[in-house]
Amino acid sequence: MLTGFRPTGPMHIGHWFGNVMNLVRLQEDHEAFYFLADWHMLTTHYDRTEELPENVRTLALDLVAAGVDPNRVTFYRQSDVKEVAELTLLLGMITPLGWLERVPTYKERLRDMAERDVANFGLLGYPVLQTVDITIVKGELIPVGEDQVSHVELTRELVRRFNRHYGDVLVEPRALLSNAPSVPGSDGRKMSKSLDNTIDVRDDEATIRRKVRSFITDPMKVRLGDPGRPDICPIFALHRLFSQDIYEWTRENCSTGALPCVDCKTNLADRIVAYYAPFRDRREELERTPGVAEKILADGREKVGPVVEETMKAVRTAMNLA
Amino acid sequence: MLTGFRPTGPMHIGHWFGNVMNLVRLQEDHEAFYFLADWHMLTTHYDRTEELPENVRTLALDLVAAGVDPNRVTFYRQSDVKEVAELTLLLGMITPLGWLERVPTYKERLRDMAERDVANFGLLGYPVLQTVDITIVKGELIPVGEDQVSHVELTRELVRRFNRHYGDVLVEPRALLSNAPSVPGSDGRKMSKSLDNTIDVRDDEATIRRKVRSFITDPMKVRLGDPGRPDICPIFALHRLFSQDIYEWTRENCSTGALPCVDCKTNLADRIVAYYAPFRDRREELERTPGVAEKILADGREKVGPVVEETMKAVRTAMNLA
Repeated sequence: MLTGFRPTGPMHIGHWFGNVMNLVRLQEDHEAFYFLADWHMLTTHYDRTEELPENVRTLALDLVAAGVDPNRVTFYRQSDVKEVAELTLLLGMITPLGWLERVPTYKERLRDMAERDVANFGLLGYPVLQTVDITIVKGELIPVGEDQVSHVELTRELVRRFNRHYGDVLVEPRALLSNAPSVPGSDGRKMSKSLDNTIDVRDDEATIRRKVRSFITDPMKVRLGDPGRPDICPIFALHRLFSQDIYEWTRENCSTGALPCVDCKTNLADRIVAYYAPFRDRREELERTPGVAEKILADGREKVGPVVEETMKAVRTAMNLA
Repeated sequence: MLTGFRPTGPMHIGHWFGNVMNLVRLQEDHEAFYFLADWHMLTTHYDRTEELPENVRTLALDLVAAGVDPNRVTFYRQSDVKEVAELTLLLGMITPLGWLERVPTYKERLRDMAERDVANFGLLGYPVLQTVDITIVKGELIPVGEDQVSHVELTRELVRRFNRHYGDVLVEPRALLSNAPSVPGSDGRKMSKSLDNTIDVRDDEATIRRKVRSFITDPMKVRLGDPGRPDICPIFALHRLFSQDIYEWTRENCSTGALPCVDCKTNLADRIVAYYAPFRDRREELERTPGVAEKILADGREKVGPVVEETMKAVRTAMNLA
């Protein structure tokens, strides 16, 4: 099983419930490869690489503090595995441009980033790089959300094309669909670093309380005592994740108007603070060891090396490049 | 100074007069990097890699026998330098698709190979790979024909773009225009392996004589004694390269009709055979040493390593990927 993380910033609670929680569970009974996709980040953030070293370090520690176990998982940094670039070059030689131009997220990215200059060769080649990430470690299972299924489909097609040309060398992966809850941010939209609406997993108590207070709630609930609509309220959506103990109670008392938003937010903040307390402890402990992120990733590089070399030897031989 | 050779087959006399002769001269007073561009070959020949190992070996020995001196030149195989793939991935992140789509040779290739499936990501990225070949060894001078000037121009633009983003890291090369003679093949078109109209430099005497006899001549010179038009005859074009001693004499006696084509061809074949006799001797001597091509290319890899590593260190540091 394989998954990658774009080091665009610290882990937020959208990452945790949307992905990481699941991966911490999956590492128990799968041979898991988790990696920090720093080269991927360049497809859209090539002009912001000054943030990269700190983002990589932070995300590595966030993931380990969240429960990714480097002793169990092969946990590495993409750019440490130079063979990824070699296989990307080789696979690109047989990747029809039409396949890449049709990828829905490619068109979305071009549209979303219209103000920035991202219509580059690297962005178009994103799915080739992703295919390499997967196949270079013989990835079989790719945990993805609904919106990523088409990427795995392209990877499968590309693997079949390679194997048709050069023999049965690459492993065809399949998607492991996860139905993760969508986590809203402070503005009600999907929580995302780029929207600046996140609560980060490593935020301290004061920051969590401040951020929770800043969340929008039902705009129709204007005065104290007005009835609220919990099902459209992002705070209530977060209660579903953090507040099993008072979830139904909150729904009732919001709907009747008995529960003021300010109290409801305090209840939520209390629970988020408590939920991540063990995380913050582990995170601080890791932070006290100098060079620990570097050490973890260096070990991961060591561990992934033989797997990668085995794939590359087979690929080079099959393509008569050995 | 840098140049690459696509290992699509043995060196023919078009290569020699068009390029190699010049390069053998240039190695005398330049720090020269010559390489076998096997990854480049995949952009159009990804489905014919079974020919690749022998093509690489043959071309390496052909070039050395022709005078490329591995003790003077850094002579290596592209795919031995894995860092080329890494830098290609990185440079691709900042290469606008529009620049690549406008390259004239890209459109030509798509047209010429309409019957084959080459509209691939790798073919579109050809100029990125070429830019890497040049910049990874800090190439300054690129000997090219007229038709390649636009490639060097794209390389220069890409280097400037990289340096604008990441600081003054890559060296901007310039084209060294060579006005090489065009060498016709047996059908009167430009000599080219893909047209199957070549005389190879390593052909033995019998093969050279047979191939010269197969050349077309002036179609209006039908009968013995008919006057010929040397200026449209491919045999006469080759006399210009091989027959200083009888060049004017041939022109006269062809024009008057006194010189039968069959004799004119014998004269040419005699001279080609003699011209390449020293080449064939050196070529045979090389062939007698087992593993000599592999040894030469391994030495070249060793020699180019520190130059490449210096560039890559600077690139990774500049992009915050170190």
